[in-house]
Order: sequence, then structure tokens, then C-alpha cells
Amino acid sequence: MAASPESKLQLVQRHIRAFPDYPKKGILFRDICPILKDPAALTAVTDLFEEHVRKNHQQVDLIVGLDARGFLFGPLLAQRLGVGFVLVRKKGKLPGTTISVSYDLEYGKAEAEIQEDAVAPGQKVLIIDDLLATGGTLYAACELLGKQQADILGCMVVIELKEMNGIDKLKSHNVFSLVQY
Amino acid sequence: MAASPESKLQLVQRHIRAFPDYPKKGILFRDICPILKDPAALTAVTDLFEEHVRKNHQQVDLIVGLDARGFLFGPLLAQRLGVGFVLVRKKGKLPGTTISVSYDLEYGKAEAEIQEDAVAPGQKVLIIDDLLATGGTLYAACELLGKQQADILGCMVVIELKEMNGIDKLKSHNVFSLVQY
Repeated sequence: MAASPESKLQLVQRHIRAFPDYPKKGILFRDICPILKDPAALTAVTDLFEEHVRKNHQQVDLIVGLDARGFLFGPLLAQRLGVGFVLVRKKGKLPGTTISVSYDLEYGKAEAEIQEDAVAPGQKVLIIDDLLATGGTLYAACELLGKQQADILGCMVVIELKEMNGIDKLKSHNVFSLVQY
Repeated sequence: MAASPESKLQLVQRHIRAFPDYPKKGILFRDICPILKDPAALTAVTDLFEEHVRKNHQQVDLIVGLDARGFLFGPLLAQRLGVGFVLVRKKGKLPGTTISVSYDLEYGKAEAEIQEDAVAPGQKVLIIDDLLATGGTLYAACELLGKQQADILGCMVVIELKEMNGIDKLKSHNVFSLVQY
């Protein structure tokens, strides 16, 4: 009997590497670089995101991606859907009038920013990033989009680290992940 | 007589905004966010990059993109060409064994990094970023890829700021830009 062909999800999983003790002892870092380096794996990620969106959302106006690894996957999905892509950046990177929110890091605080004219009230947006850990950055993005009165359809990530409980922080929002650890 | 249809290049140009005195007085900042927000303009950027590559390079093995705005355009081009995408990041963002080079900023220094196994000797690579100003970051990326004995086919940017003379710094490398100011 022939072996089953590898599914898109298996192809994606096979291109995620684990690095123990990075960036510090006790952390198992999930590296998505091999996905980017393999054109079939990157196509599979985009396919799986697109399938999820078409199945679950009748209308999407914008994909919003988080600095910097959300930039790797967001424009690909936006192009597939034929919609625009909007950037949420670390503070001080966007010109013009911006809205910002601060959020907690393990040590200290960071700020996320969006251009004030990036999203119009009522626009239906999906937020994309590579990974959901504690959910701090995604939650900050939701706050920014809430201030802009966007209709947040949900968050999408390649990887969810379930032990970090990011889902709890984002509980009022739908979260879709391709791979869970 | 009907007006000529807008060219792809004109469509791209129309989606670049200028912000005077950002990030500081005397600097005219060119903002590419409107390109990302308009699906047709983003398709046009990818079309123009792809046309250039197919016309000028018989073989490309990898697209290398610079953190963070090179991440917006690089994976789209890599997918069009059916090749992989490799990340050059700011220091401390990539797990595993990395190679780094430092380069000068206006005040102080920065470091660019790449994973040691990202590129094999002799692989033909094109480096992509949003903008060429002084050329410091692109030059650092060329140094990194030189250390990996890659065959650097050239650098590609959406925007070249000619008065900053980045071309001089990169003189041993081909540079292709879509829009020049």
C-alpha cells in the first residue's frame, strides 16, 4: 500500500524547527525560517490561512500584520484574498498621525502603533502574526484596532504555544492557529 | 482621445506618500504603507520585480529580505519565482548558529544577522528591501552573504533616494529600483 501523501499541514509542521534554551534557558524556540525557505511550505501556509478565511468569513476588508514576522505571511494572504494589508509597528517606525498602545513585556513595556488613517470604522479586519505565546502583542493590536472602531474578525497565527495561555488574554477574539504545541 | 491607461509603475508611484520632517527635521520620509493597503499596487510591485528578474537573471536560488520592510515584499517575489526566502534580521532575533556583521548608523552601530545554514556556497541570491538610502543595511547584507560565499546577483528596492548615494556604497553590486527620488 502506498503511503498517504503528505498533507499541507504536515508539510508546514515539518518545516518548523525547535531550538532549546533560546533566547534563554528553559525556552524552546519555534523557528519558522525553514517554512520561508521552502516555497511549497510557504504556499501551504497561505493555502491553509486562505481556506480558513473563505470558510469562516463572508467578507474581509483588510489583513493587519504585526512587526516583523507578521509581515512575512500577511501580504501573501492579503494578495490571495484581494484585499489590502495594514502594518502594526513598534513605536517610532510609522510616519504621519499614529495611534499607539503600550503593553507589558517580560521586563518593561513596549508600544505598538498604527497609522490613524489605516483602518476606517466598521472595516472587517483579520490580524496575523507568526506565533501566539502570551498574547501581549496581539492583544495590543486588538486594542489599537478597537480604538479605530474596526470590526475585528479574529487573529490568525502559524503557531500557538498553548502552555503560554495567550488564548485567555485574547478571549473576546477568535484565534485560529495552524500548529499547536 | 482616451487617456493612456495607468502603467504599473505609475500605480506604484501614486501609492507612495511623502512626509516632511520625519523622523526628524529636514528629512522627507517616503511611506510605502499605501502600496501595501492597495492590492493592485502591491501586485504591480511584485509584477515589476518579477519582470526584472526574469529578464536579467537566468537562475535565482533564493530571495533574501531585510528586517522588517523587506519582509513585506520578499516572500511575494519568492513565491512568484518558486524559490525560497531567507531572513536577514537585526541582532538577537534568529535562533541557532548565526553570522553577524556590524554597520554604522547615523548615531552608533547596528548588527545584521543571518542563520549560518541559510545559504549554501554558490547559491544565487537577490537581496530585497523597501528603500535604498545610504546603503548601510544593504551593504551589511552583502557582507553577510559574501561570508557565506553566496553568488550575489544584486539588490532590489522599491525606492531609491538618489541624493543619499547608496549606489556608491554598493558599487560592486547591481542595484535595481522601481522608483527614484
